[in-house]
Amino acid sequence: MNEVVTSTAEGLTSSVRETLENLINECAYALDDGDIDRWPYFFTESATYHVTTRENHCDGLPIGVIHCVGRGMMLDRVKAFHTANIFEPHHYNHVLGRPLFSMGQAADTYRSRCNFQVVRIMQDGRRELFATGKYLDTIVLENGVSKFQERIVVLDSRHIDILLVIPL
Amino acid sequence: MNEVVTSTAEGLTSSVRETLENLINECAYALDDGDIDRWPYFFTESATYHVTTRENHCDGLPIGVIHCVGRGMMLDRVKAFHTANIFEPHHYNHVLGRPLFSMGQAADTYRSRCNFQVVRIMQDGRRELFATGKYLDTIVLENGVSKFQERIVVLDSRHIDILLVIPL
Amino acid sequence: MNEVVTSTAEGLTSSVRETLENLINECAYALDDGDIDRWPYFFTESATYHVTTRENHCDGLPIGVIHCVGRGMMLDRVKAFHTANIFEPHHYNHVLGRPLFSMGQAADTYRSRCNFQVVRIMQDGRRELFATGKYLDTIVLENGVSKFQERIVVLDSRHIDILLVIPL
Repeated sequence: MNEVVTSTAEGLTSSVRETLENLINECAYALDDGDIDRWPYFFTESATYHVTTRENHCDGLPIGVIHCVGRGMMLDRVKAFHTANIFEPHHYNHVLGRPLFSMGQAADTYRSRCNFQVVRIMQDGRRELFATGKYLDTIVLENGVSKFQERIVVLDSRHIDILLVIPL
Repeated sequence: MNEVVTSTAEGLTSSVRETLENLINECAYALDDGDIDRWPYFFTESATYHVTTRENHCDGLPIGVIHCVGRGMMLDRVKAFHTANIFEPHHYNHVLGRPLFSMGQAADTYRSRCNFQVVRIMQDGRRELFATGKYLDTIVLENGVSKFQERIVVLDSRHIDILLVIPL
Repeated sequence: MNEVVTSTAEGLTSSVRETLENLINECAYALDDGDIDRWPYFFTESATYHVTTRENHCDGLPIGVIHCVGRGMMLDRVKAFHTANIFEPHHYNHVLGRPLFSMGQAADTYRSRCNFQVVRIMQDGRRELFATGKYLDTIVLENGVSKFQERIVVLDSRHIDILLVIPL
């Protein structure tokens, strides 16, 4: 009864996998390269982006660190990044695990689970393991282009700077 | 004479690679998600699981940190995890490199080498780089299902908590 | 105007991707396993290898930490590693992100961008996050064998031991 069930999506062709994996990795690399303006466009117009902790996620609590509903709220975050926030300059280095995919409920929709480890580098060169966790994504594929419909960022630890300037 | 020889297994189709990579990553994600009960079922009934250090492995020493012969011993470890051990609650975050595969000696058998970096997160949120090393796996593929026949976990450093509660 | 453009190389078959990814990962694993003699042979005879910092790279400054022009200079570095250098024994553990590829300007040439996080392990077991950054590679594929024509290692931080004994 405890047999391992392969979670691979049946019917997930290697070209679809390629497209989905590229989305996940391009988004991370864009953030690492400081192209934060691109970030909202990895999401659909109506997408949700939610950052929470493992504890809250396991308990089913809706409380999170960040919650964006729709691309508009993501664009607002990017605007705030450019104008309002005062913070010490830094950037990230994401290394992601290999995503595991399953078919979503709607057509051309895929679910993904993928680990991440993010190192934060301050302008003076200081470096620290900043965040670890997993991405739980719902991705839609339209005309060969994939976008996030939902991204839940589940942080392993609640010890994190409350001021998450650059999205994870 | 020092030419690099591509170590890719001839005849390793992309669908076989997909199956093998899924095994390796699902096993890691199951441990990270606390599904330790699933862990022995990623192995065949007669599989061996061996944790050793780089030093001992290079010297060909059979001494290791953990040595399980057969799934029964792995189930015992899981049982001990649930009942006997007293330890501070924690979980892992694995990030794995891309495995390199070669054909095993027996039919439908594959060898794999894959790096890992594991962060350990304590219940109070403390986080540390806990272990790094490589997995040396022998995987069998039967009826489209892949399982570990042998897993050797080669730790980079002998500095590790002797009480390895959750398997790596 | 800010639409995300998929950066995947058109015409990049999955078998070409496999070959390119294997090159990048085999090179890292060879260094981790102490097979430093193999390192120059992952490059073409006329290849360049350049280690620089994010700051210098962004400013277009040619100043770097290491600069090798041609495999001969890489062989010299390896020779120095074996004979001249006096240093505390250590090794690396690389974990790499998934490379994103685009077509190069010449035929059978590919460009790649790939994150890395490298942990350094000293002989006494001490372990630290040593370097993070990205590889910007130009890879040529001849008769099914891929080699680096150019590798630019962009370090996230200028805080790094000036004596980079083992290549990154």
